[in-house]
Amino acid sequence: MATYMDVHRGMVGITEDQLLEAHRADLAIEKEEGVHFQKAWADPESGTVYCLSTGPSADAVQRIHQRTGHAADEIHEVTLTV
Amino acid sequence: MATYMDVHRGMVGITEDQLLEAHRADLAIEKEEGVHFQKAWADPESGTVYCLSTGPSADAVQRIHQRTGHAADEIHEVTLTV
Repeated sequence: MATYMDVHRGMVGITEDQLLEAHRADLAIEKEEGVHFQKAWADPESGTVYCLSTGPSADAVQRIHQRTGHAADEIHEVTLTV
Repeated sequence: MATYMDVHRGMVGITEDQLLEAHRADLAIEKEEGVHFQKAWADPESGTVYCLSTGPSADAVQRIHQRTGHAADEIHEVTLTV
């Protein structure tokens, strides 16, 4: 199981409700890919959203985000944490 | 006090020791700007490092990173968290 940080751009003006709804949609189906979305942070001004997750692969993380309608622009496996 | 996610690029091959050393250098002087670096995640393959911090402004966060020799390429105030 690896840890991933993914980045979504172009989400200018995202609201707390929209972030929560997107996160809940991911949580609802994440088990089908063995993924778990732990946390998300959003900057509505620049439209940037960061999601921290664990899972078997970046592709598995992306498949969940795609199915819930918000594919990530970048996904990085973060092998080091401090 | 706001929360910030900053991104460093070009850190290809960063090791656990180097990440820890950089983080400790930030922690050592962060109080001078009222900043606190909470967590950092690194992807040595793409050379991307994400840092989560709290502080009074993005400029305050950047000043600490600059003084410790690793200015961030992007800093976003993340006003929403889930």
